[in-house]
Amino acid sequence: MTNILGDNDAAAQQNRQLLADHNVLAVDLMGSPGCGKTSILERVIQQLKGLTIRVIEGDVATANDAERIEAAGAEAFQINTGGMCHLNAPMVRRAMDKMDLAGTDLLLIENVGNLVCPAAFKLGAQYRFVVSSIPEGDDKPEKYPVAFRTSQGVILNKLDLIPHSPFDTEKFWDLCGQLQPHAVQFAISCTTGAGITELCQWLTEQHSQLTSA
Amino acid sequence: MTNILGDNDAAAQQNRQLLADHNVLAVDLMGSPGCGKTSILERVIQQLKGLTIRVIEGDVATANDAERIEAAGAEAFQINTGGMCHLNAPMVRRAMDKMDLAGTDLLLIENVGNLVCPAAFKLGAQYRFVVSSIPEGDDKPEKYPVAFRTSQGVILNKLDLIPHSPFDTEKFWDLCGQLQPHAVQFAISCTTGAGITELCQWLTEQHSQLTSA
Repeated sequence: MTNILGDNDAAAQQNRQLLADHNVLAVDLMGSPGCGKTSILERVIQQLKGLTIRVIEGDVATANDAERIEAAGAEAFQINTGGMCHLNAPMVRRAMDKMDLAGTDLLLIENVGNLVCPAAFKLGAQYRFVVSSIPEGDDKPEKYPVAFRTSQGVILNKLDLIPHSPFDTEKFWDLCGQLQPHAVQFAISCTTGAGITELCQWLTEQHSQLTSA
Repeated sequence: MTNILGDNDAAAQQNRQLLADHNVLAVDLMGSPGCGKTSILERVIQQLKGLTIRVIEGDVATANDAERIEAAGAEAFQINTGGMCHLNAPMVRRAMDKMDLAGTDLLLIENVGNLVCPAAFKLGAQYRFVVSSIPEGDDKPEKYPVAFRTSQGVILNKLDLIPHSPFDTEKFWDLCGQLQPHAVQFAISCTTGAGITELCQWLTEQHSQLTSA
């Protein structure tokens, strides 16, 4: 296990260098099945017109998500893990090798729907975001702490379901803050569009810092 | 990996024999984080008064779920996997060894919240149920096929959120049927209580078939 993680970390470090060499901002999204990762990507692709976005889609099976991404207007690279419960850095590298990196501003990587396994495998992205959604309940940070501790951002999705779900927003953000005080936080709804502008703004700012550095 | 699975299968077979020797009906629940597994157990414990129920709670971290189960009125045995993404048969055996099996009618096992990894590890229960919930979307069987193919039952939870979520119920059950035509199907809501009576009735019937066999 230590060897597997060591090999993965080395590959992740190479990915990170390759992204830096091409001024690509990369963000890895992890979260439960059905928390809305693909819907977030669709919204960002539709709204964030200033940057060229490419997407890597990680799934156990099907190419459904890649088709949704292409329909939203970005080039998508599907990885089927064949049963494996997370992406790893070499898989991401193989997708990057097929991609026009020099012509990419923002690379969004959707991990396999899973709040446990992806947390252990760095992919080389500058940021990892964990996505959690209102109907999953406000206790998820406490119950899946590694995902929240190792993420540089948290997206709380499906805000529109707040009136229909028992969810203590303050408790959720408190738990997040305890696990990772420096993570940037977004509360959004892909149904109403709430919070998407702020998320797009943040991505644009991070990209411009990258290119001006 | 083949060895790990082989060892686990042997331990699962022993668990199954031990359950049969004591006329215990065991059901293993798997599903995404936040799909409502613990809420289903609470509802069943509160409503199913004819059987003595004990619960094994699998979590990556915290004993929150075991506390909820005890509050609902059943004895709970917490397993913290320490980061591992699924229960396995030896973990379940250690919990069973602490339990009054002869005084147990129904053993409910809540797996770690994860729609991928638990599918590969038999625990010895006579039935595995996969739990999916309305806000997760109707495509989950297709995207996580092994979980649905290896389950003898499907519970579709959070029916009360149908008016607020895009969800094609017919499509969902069609996909389930393609993957596992023999699985028993329940549509429920732990908020309204819809479908819980039917689930309890089915559990009672399975238990009485076990004891009359």
